[in-house]
Amino acid sequence: MRDLKKKDKLVQAAGDAFGNTLTLQALDVCSDDSVRQCISRVKDRHIDILINNAGVGLLGPVESISLDQMKTVFETNFFGTVRMIKEVMPDMKRRRMGHIIVMSSVMGMQGVVFNDVYTASKFAIEGFCESLAVQLLKFNVKLSLIEPGPVHTEFEAKMMEEVAKMEFPGADADTVRYFKDVYMPSSIDIFEAMGQTPDDIAKCTKKVIESSNPRFRNLTNSLYTPIVAMKYADETGGLSVHTFYNLLFNFGSLMHITMSILKCLTCSCLRRRTISPD
Amino acid sequence: MRDLKKKDKLVQAAGDAFGNTLTLQALDVCSDDSVRQCISRVKDRHIDILINNAGVGLLGPVESISLDQMKTVFETNFFGTVRMIKEVMPDMKRRRMGHIIVMSSVMGMQGVVFNDVYTASKFAIEGFCESLAVQLLKFNVKLSLIEPGPVHTEFEAKMMEEVAKMEFPGADADTVRYFKDVYMPSSIDIFEAMGQTPDDIAKCTKKVIESSNPRFRNLTNSLYTPIVAMKYADETGGLSVHTFYNLLFNFGSLMHITMSILKCLTCSCLRRRTISPD
Repeated sequence: MRDLKKKDKLVQAAGDAFGNTLTLQALDVCSDDSVRQCISRVKDRHIDILINNAGVGLLGPVESISLDQMKTVFETNFFGTVRMIKEVMPDMKRRRMGHIIVMSSVMGMQGVVFNDVYTASKFAIEGFCESLAVQLLKFNVKLSLIEPGPVHTEFEAKMMEEVAKMEFPGADADTVRYFKDVYMPSSIDIFEAMGQTPDDIAKCTKKVIESSNPRFRNLTNSLYTPIVAMKYADETGGLSVHTFYNLLFNFGSLMHITMSILKCLTCSCLRRRTISPD
Repeated sequence: MRDLKKKDKLVQAAGDAFGNTLTLQALDVCSDDSVRQCISRVKDRHIDILINNAGVGLLGPVESISLDQMKTVFETNFFGTVRMIKEVMPDMKRRRMGHIIVMSSVMGMQGVVFNDVYTASKFAIEGFCESLAVQLLKFNVKLSLIEPGPVHTEFEAKMMEEVAKMEFPGADADTVRYFKDVYMPSSIDIFEAMGQTPDDIAKCTKKVIESSNPRFRNLTNSLYTPIVAMKYADETGGLSVHTFYNLLFNFGSLMHITMSILKCLTCSCLRRRTISPD
């Protein structure tokens, strides 16, 4: 955890495991020192499975986002993961054994309007892992990406709420209007219809860990497959760009209805069926 | 240009155009001040077409690359492009007209072993542009990615030469051997068989500019299409990872022969046919 003072909820949920099979360490993936100290506190530095889960979000028109804000997102989402991998990977390669898991996002495979920077940071980690996976195979080290879509967390709900109140200095009135009145309602619809729980993602991650032959890429929800398929169906990229444009700007109300139907279809009893990989 | 002292070759090639339809400005895409000054020297800040071409390479085992070196690559390849777009885009959106062109790479769509960081930086700009393109369509501003593969430049030849001599502190002996003795010869084969000239890329870019309905994604060489198609054919990512692994580690000599044949097939007279988009 970045801040061990916040451990109470986790310790309570862990029950008997805490102090037995579970120990907690302070870790800030943005700090070289913190990463080094955390790993060297592990017995013999022996790590079988590294799960890179730390991540931050950023939403809004790029005109109102400073380069420094963008770099903060990259520092956690991309460089934080790279820092951890660089610290742990050499020992895994030497032992010819290990599994690195990276929490990416469907936004690491397909851009989403007004999520330009978050998307870019997740694309970056996808490219890094695609390159590394080929080499790691030679050392019998496994690398898997988990690709969640929207996940219902306190963090996500709070961000949505804050964004609705924010001003966006630097962005023109039309852009702010499209963001607040067109994108945000659509985004909330999508969240409600397709959102998974953190528990769904944990279950998917557990499956990936336990698999004897884990996939490289693991979509957590089969509902997202068409989004990725669309990109892959047209190498010019036009199909994706125009489909997302039409969904957002031309068929907003149709999309609202579709998402409402989807919300019923994916109620909690059915949602359990949609945790991939099977 | 970053350094106007190096203008002589360009001025000579430009002939009468220089001082007439061509002017040169100093520009360092890594500096906020430089970007602002460059654009404000343009009459009325009116830019019809922005071509983001600045980029740097980085090659080698990640163990031997520091986080600071990685950030330098991102500073030019990703944040440099974002800085330019942020400076120019608001005026284009206001005028409801303009075309932003980004020089990406096939490595922005498919990871390549030992190119982890370069690939990540190009993936990042792809994700950023995919997100932005949807919004820009509403403002009648076009956004196009150019996706070259290997290009024969002095820069590239020099890098290859230097890399062969380098030591790679932090990387284990096996990894360095795979890099120098397996990857590098394959890479040189691919360069010789599939490499295009800067002129090929310029011609492709000109086509994109002149198109009344430019594509979002533009592969400069149809020979790369199978590489991307393979990724898209298998959502688990396993097909790509295993194919690249086998090409590199198991079928090295077969690949050498294939590339030699391809080199004959794509000799300069035929190479002209492969400049996409048609």
